[in-house]
Amino acid sequence: MKKRQLKIAVIGGGSSYTPELIDGLIRYHDMFPVADLYLVDIEAGAEKLKVVGDLAQRMIDASGKPIKLHLTLDRREAIRGADFVTTQIRVGMLDARSRDEKIPLAHHLIGQETTGAGGFAKALRTIPVILDICKDIEELAPDAFMINFTNPAGLVTEAVSKYSRVKSVGLCNLPISTKMQIAELYGVPQTEMYIEIVGINHLHWTTRVMIDGKEMTGDFLDKLSGAKGISMANIPDLEWDAEFIQSLGALPCAYHRYYYMKEEMLREIMEHYEATGKTRADEVKEVEAELFELYKQPALTSKPPQLEKRGGAYYSEAAVQLMKSIYNDTGDIQTVNVRNQGIIPCLPDNVAIEVNCVIKSDGPHALSLSHPLPPQIRGLLQVVKAYEELTVEAAVHGDYAAALQALTIHPLVGDEQTAKALLNDLLEQNSGFLPQFQVRSGQTL
Amino acid sequence: MKKRQLKIAVIGGGSSYTPELIDGLIRYHDMFPVADLYLVDIEAGAEKLKVVGDLAQRMIDASGKPIKLHLTLDRREAIRGADFVTTQIRVGMLDARSRDEKIPLAHHLIGQETTGAGGFAKALRTIPVILDICKDIEELAPDAFMINFTNPAGLVTEAVSKYSRVKSVGLCNLPISTKMQIAELYGVPQTEMYIEIVGINHLHWTTRVMIDGKEMTGDFLDKLSGAKGISMANIPDLEWDAEFIQSLGALPCAYHRYYYMKEEMLREIMEHYEATGKTRADEVKEVEAELFELYKQPALTSKPPQLEKRGGAYYSEAAVQLMKSIYNDTGDIQTVNVRNQGIIPCLPDNVAIEVNCVIKSDGPHALSLSHPLPPQIRGLLQVVKAYEELTVEAAVHGDYAAALQALTIHPLVGDEQTAKALLNDLLEQNSGFLPQFQVRSGQTL
Amino acid sequence: MKKRQLKIAVIGGGSSYTPELIDGLIRYHDMFPVADLYLVDIEAGAEKLKVVGDLAQRMIDASGKPIKLHLTLDRREAIRGADFVTTQIRVGMLDARSRDEKIPLAHHLIGQETTGAGGFAKALRTIPVILDICKDIEELAPDAFMINFTNPAGLVTEAVSKYSRVKSVGLCNLPISTKMQIAELYGVPQTEMYIEIVGINHLHWTTRVMIDGKEMTGDFLDKLSGAKGISMANIPDLEWDAEFIQSLGALPCAYHRYYYMKEEMLREIMEHYEATGKTRADEVKEVEAELFELYKQPALTSKPPQLEKRGGAYYSEAAVQLMKSIYNDTGDIQTVNVRNQGIIPCLPDNVAIEVNCVIKSDGPHALSLSHPLPPQIRGLLQVVKAYEELTVEAAVHGDYAAALQALTIHPLVGDEQTAKALLNDLLEQNSGFLPQFQVRSGQTL
Amino acid sequence: MKKRQLKIAVIGGGSSYTPELIDGLIRYHDMFPVADLYLVDIEAGAEKLKVVGDLAQRMIDASGKPIKLHLTLDRREAIRGADFVTTQIRVGMLDARSRDEKIPLAHHLIGQETTGAGGFAKALRTIPVILDICKDIEELAPDAFMINFTNPAGLVTEAVSKYSRVKSVGLCNLPISTKMQIAELYGVPQTEMYIEIVGINHLHWTTRVMIDGKEMTGDFLDKLSGAKGISMANIPDLEWDAEFIQSLGALPCAYHRYYYMKEEMLREIMEHYEATGKTRADEVKEVEAELFELYKQPALTSKPPQLEKRGGAYYSEAAVQLMKSIYNDTGDIQTVNVRNQGIIPCLPDNVAIEVNCVIKSDGPHALSLSHPLPPQIRGLLQVVKAYEELTVEAAVHGDYAAALQALTIHPLVGDEQTAKALLNDLLEQNSGFLPQFQVRSGQTL
Repeated sequence: MKKRQLKIAVIGGGSSYTPELIDGLIRYHDMFPVADLYLVDIEAGAEKLKVVGDLAQRMIDASGKPIKLHLTLDRREAIRGADFVTTQIRVGMLDARSRDEKIPLAHHLIGQETTGAGGFAKALRTIPVILDICKDIEELAPDAFMINFTNPAGLVTEAVSKYSRVKSVGLCNLPISTKMQIAELYGVPQTEMYIEIVGINHLHWTTRVMIDGKEMTGDFLDKLSGAKGISMANIPDLEWDAEFIQSLGALPCAYHRYYYMKEEMLREIMEHYEATGKTRADEVKEVEAELFELYKQPALTSKPPQLEKRGGAYYSEAAVQLMKSIYNDTGDIQTVNVRNQGIIPCLPDNVAIEVNCVIKSDGPHALSLSHPLPPQIRGLLQVVKAYEELTVEAAVHGDYAAALQALTIHPLVGDEQTAKALLNDLLEQNSGFLPQFQVRSGQTL
Repeated sequence: MKKRQLKIAVIGGGSSYTPELIDGLIRYHDMFPVADLYLVDIEAGAEKLKVVGDLAQRMIDASGKPIKLHLTLDRREAIRGADFVTTQIRVGMLDARSRDEKIPLAHHLIGQETTGAGGFAKALRTIPVILDICKDIEELAPDAFMINFTNPAGLVTEAVSKYSRVKSVGLCNLPISTKMQIAELYGVPQTEMYIEIVGINHLHWTTRVMIDGKEMTGDFLDKLSGAKGISMANIPDLEWDAEFIQSLGALPCAYHRYYYMKEEMLREIMEHYEATGKTRADEVKEVEAELFELYKQPALTSKPPQLEKRGGAYYSEAAVQLMKSIYNDTGDIQTVNVRNQGIIPCLPDNVAIEVNCVIKSDGPHALSLSHPLPPQIRGLLQVVKAYEELTVEAAVHGDYAAALQALTIHPLVGDEQTAKALLNDLLEQNSGFLPQFQVRSGQTL
Repeated sequence: MKKRQLKIAVIGGGSSYTPELIDGLIRYHDMFPVADLYLVDIEAGAEKLKVVGDLAQRMIDASGKPIKLHLTLDRREAIRGADFVTTQIRVGMLDARSRDEKIPLAHHLIGQETTGAGGFAKALRTIPVILDICKDIEELAPDAFMINFTNPAGLVTEAVSKYSRVKSVGLCNLPISTKMQIAELYGVPQTEMYIEIVGINHLHWTTRVMIDGKEMTGDFLDKLSGAKGISMANIPDLEWDAEFIQSLGALPCAYHRYYYMKEEMLREIMEHYEATGKTRADEVKEVEAELFELYKQPALTSKPPQLEKRGGAYYSEAAVQLMKSIYNDTGDIQTVNVRNQGIIPCLPDNVAIEVNCVIKSDGPHALSLSHPLPPQIRGLLQVVKAYEELTVEAAVHGDYAAALQALTIHPLVGDEQTAKALLNDLLEQNSGFLPQFQVRSGQTL
Repeated sequence: MKKRQLKIAVIGGGSSYTPELIDGLIRYHDMFPVADLYLVDIEAGAEKLKVVGDLAQRMIDASGKPIKLHLTLDRREAIRGADFVTTQIRVGMLDARSRDEKIPLAHHLIGQETTGAGGFAKALRTIPVILDICKDIEELAPDAFMINFTNPAGLVTEAVSKYSRVKSVGLCNLPISTKMQIAELYGVPQTEMYIEIVGINHLHWTTRVMIDGKEMTGDFLDKLSGAKGISMANIPDLEWDAEFIQSLGALPCAYHRYYYMKEEMLREIMEHYEATGKTRADEVKEVEAELFELYKQPALTSKPPQLEKRGGAYYSEAAVQLMKSIYNDTGDIQTVNVRNQGIIPCLPDNVAIEVNCVIKSDGPHALSLSHPLPPQIRGLLQVVKAYEELTVEAAVHGDYAAALQALTIHPLVGDEQTAKALLNDLLEQNSGFLPQFQVRSGQTL
């Protein structure tokens, strides 16, 4: 018999995304009967937690679902005995993200939340905190699944898989968005469509499309050519070149624009920054301020449509679908981040990958690929994964050498002199959040 | 839109198993709407085809399903434009099987239909005929799936995968039987159970059992110890030793008894043969004769219960479930024979394996293993697979050297002197069915 | 008994490098007794062949060695029955190289003979010609070894290995130069030193140094830090950063400067070009003109010291050492380009790699690596190798899609828009040398 | 500068083989200048140590070489600061070996010192003692090479590689014997011959023969057919079948007779035992008694020719050649036991294999194979290696389950019921030597 009194702990519960999640938990309550929902945050997030928590309570009340909501600053209390722990934290908050975006720009490099040097800095700040959470889970809820939504989700998942015993799955709303947009393109329900997604978080390719059981990959590539393709709210929306897509033989993900259209993306970001003095983080801050004003309105008892602008579309969909499928042992296919174990044979066994998995009660089981990866996908995937492996080591051990090599081989940096100056800037401006580099940085900076 | 006028060709349609299949096609007709069903056989099987075909027609009539039945000796007509081609052929018929069982016994070795020297001889006879069928499919029904039920199913699937372009899946009723018996053991419906099966046809292990989403593998091994475990109608039913099962860490399949209990199995077979003068094939002949008498009775309009004794339990279940899931793009998990492609990393990529697969409209997608295989499973699996690789080469090319080495390294032979004498006997007694060895055998025998 | 009447065919015999080779063949004649030496060139190189051939004859005469020299424009005559065929061709001659260097510069990218877009264009021109030579060897000298000195040597070796049956080894003077410079650094003879070189042509790392049997890798990295390291005549000589070398844990090769110091290298090349209007090819043309004037002097009977400036230092050393070791079945260790076959497990089996090999009469046997490659080496190596795989396909099949993807993922390009414009320029300006792209380019350009 | 004061520790110095080793150390003293030679043994071997030590001293005196001989029962004193530690121990002495040979016979299985159940029991006794020696080496001579001659040498090398940090090489006289016999067959000096040996200790194949730089493998297989092939003093000398050798495509090693001619070998051993009441160990005891009588003769100042009968031919050759090549950083090719690391891709990376290696000052560097292994070699190799992996675990951890599975999958056992009875016998009769099984065996036996 399945447990009917589920406990969920949401680490970073004061996030502006939380109403998304609450909405999903309410909508799917029949199939995923949460009894106790803990929203936990740190002291600095107490005020946001209060606002979000009050809205969450109003949403639950309006739904009539028997979900008991708990707001707390005591992480261990939240985790103790939980069935699922979700994380959506932002170490250093949006100010840190703003720096992540600006420091690379000062070196004439793309500054982005999860990709390149920005994502690198975020990983250094975030991974030690997540591993600390994992220690609590190992002690207080050893059977819990950790559903990690915290970015950079691939790097975080890999760190957890390498340095803890927690059962964890890394999750992103990009695959589910891709699916929805392709379904829309073909005018079919998702259930009549199957797509093969392969790669790593924020660097995956859609290598196959089947509609109603028919192979449509060639047709799909034709359709895509020249179109704007799949996009995300937070990524400038440049068109893909038809010939390029055909020669690639797959649909790149939205974040691929930072690689394949590096020059133009840099130019756009730079122009925008120079024109407005703002990066995406600065704009998100404004959106968030507005959202929190909305959240405070006592009449609001559902997630406001403005939340979509924030970039969190389908977030609850992805998270609740995953937990629901684990809970119900559903056996449906979702695209999540898991340990490789030979599924992508050109990558090491112990790294995190983002692929189609069957979701069972013991978590995701990856599906074998329909075709071997062609060299154009393989090469880019391998070099970015090597960057990720080095970044995980740097983040866990405060290893300056690994950090320097990580940035040096990253395709968006690719120069050791640039990498070194950039790294020193990142370490200095993040020094309050990088205790693991403290001792070393005294020596090396 | 899915095609509503499915055509199925059943090669070897005169088989005594056919009523099983008809039964399944009738039961699942709503979800797998067969319009045209061709039963095809060779001249020598014309009489059996008539008997079986008449019964099939009566079964269809009684069901009221709109299935149009065609009986034919023209294989190309049956295959042309088919959506699915199933094979259930027996080259040399039961007389050949009887020899397969007796020749090894004369060398003091286990003689069995699919395992060891018996299965080897069957592979030599069968693979060229199957590849010939594949040529017809490539020409006349290039989009058809071939569902291969012909034994030795793993060897046949591997040969088809290596030497033809036909989309084929190898199928066996052993995995589905194992699932049913474990479900019964736990008193749960199959839908609340998940087991992980890994290996090759007739040599797979059940390495994991989950009941209602809970890990029960340890409990399952405890339960098994001392019990008779999973059995098949055609395999002597010896008890597994408790300590052995615990040390193995998995449930062996029924055919493993020929390996792990080699001595006792040989003794039992030998004693039985000496006492009765009969091997299993001889008994099956009698069962078949009775079955055909039954089949002839005009009042019979359903498959008779006696068919189960024949060993075909769940045959229709396995075959129809697979075709139904492909047709409906179901995405459920079934255990079938597919090309390895890295799923079992200790075996070559291009060999056939038997593992859990998600069944989509384009066929099976193998699932990654939960755990790496332990050495005790790996070693036996590898040596038997090497035997299979050699056997495929021997069967396709009439390669005496490959044949000699295949038998020499087979764990049930394992001696080159024995292997050579045995091989020469097998080639001589099967000479009418082995044109590929003709030229050579003139020289080598 | 070893053959005492060796025949060598030198394809591209009119090269200014040839006196180097003649010098080596004379010096080592006792151990590598060449009887017939064919210098062969194309019609357009007839004059240079005459000049070089005359010098070669004077060198041989002065040496008193019984080498019979043959000058010919008939390639098949030269190859027929040869024991070794060396290639040192330059399709399109130095004018093409000059374009290879200038076209990328026009796109603000590094233009270099073998690395990046320049090497890519050279590969497209060269590979079909080399494969044509291979057809002659397959027919006229099937037992011959082809010693390929033609750049880009790694790409050419891979193409030969994938698309011909000729026994070939790719050779470069960079490993032997590295060895000599490290031996000098330590003041020991090469025989008391062992270094481990691993990677691909013009992108290898020295990962280990042993002096007199002692592990000195750490000491070596210390020594290197801040020093200019190993250099080549044709590569700007920038210092490596101490911390970078330590974090890399290996000595990069000279060509690594184009990757690790991309920005500074581009700046230097650009400044030099803007100041002088010349690239390296233009300067080499001048050096060559001077060399050929020297070569014409009847009094000259040895290779002139000016040849070193040309960049060919140790060329004869590398080539003659290799042929001598094959001929004598020496079993010494040399660093050459061979098929991978698992030696570098993170690369495909069928690609060319540059590693330490034991040289026996049947050619090179690669040595296993002392340590797995760290991610910083692995990632860069993998992406450049993927570029090479695509480039080989593009060169052999005139495949525009492969060409576009090759340039897109190359770390010195890395942007699809840039790659496309660059590719179209390269194809257009090389159209006379790329018959394989003819048909397509009509459509795509 | 190389060290000129080498210290060697010989663990098991009282062995009858020691005069072989002394002979080698004297002969090669110029190139391998041993200054201090420690023969160490346990209390029970004190008397043999005295006899052998006295002979060794007389041999050294007669040679005039400046080798200082030390006899001791203090292992730590012998190991402290040693440059090389060789092991040639026999836990339980010849009585234990006699049991190893007889217990399997009682179960109608081959009983042999290193192969099958006998070698298994020897591994259980020996591995813990060797790992104990390794702890001393790690502490007292961390830079020393351990040259392991103790059987089963492959299993012991694998255990050391997996469970200690000692630099070790496993050594056997079988490869060097094979080389000598093939050289004799062709009437050439070994220096003009190259053979490729691949596999694991006592289960390797000679897959390639080159004479004077020419491929002679086909010719070699022809020559072998019908001949007695390569033999060892201690293995019954049955002829290989011509057709079998051709189909195998390689020369099996002498120990392969236990596999490929299992039945005949068992019959021969059994007949011999029944006729004489003796196994090989019993005969060796007699040979040893005679040898020790010889050793005692004061006039004897060299190794007596009778020693060859003992089976130790070329032992000193193999051991001293290896140490000499390490000491002199020779770079010659020898066949030794090392960690796999991808050289045999069908085996795990961390297992011991026996292959051609270049011997440098840092030890052996394995050479890549000329050709992938064919299935007939691969399958047998894999199953025996899986047995070895399980046996190492059983020996190190006293793991009954691993022991039971090891015997079950061994091709010379291959039946779980037989394996269990046999294992219980082996554990009981060796109980004094298997402290690691003590606790368990109380429960399980």
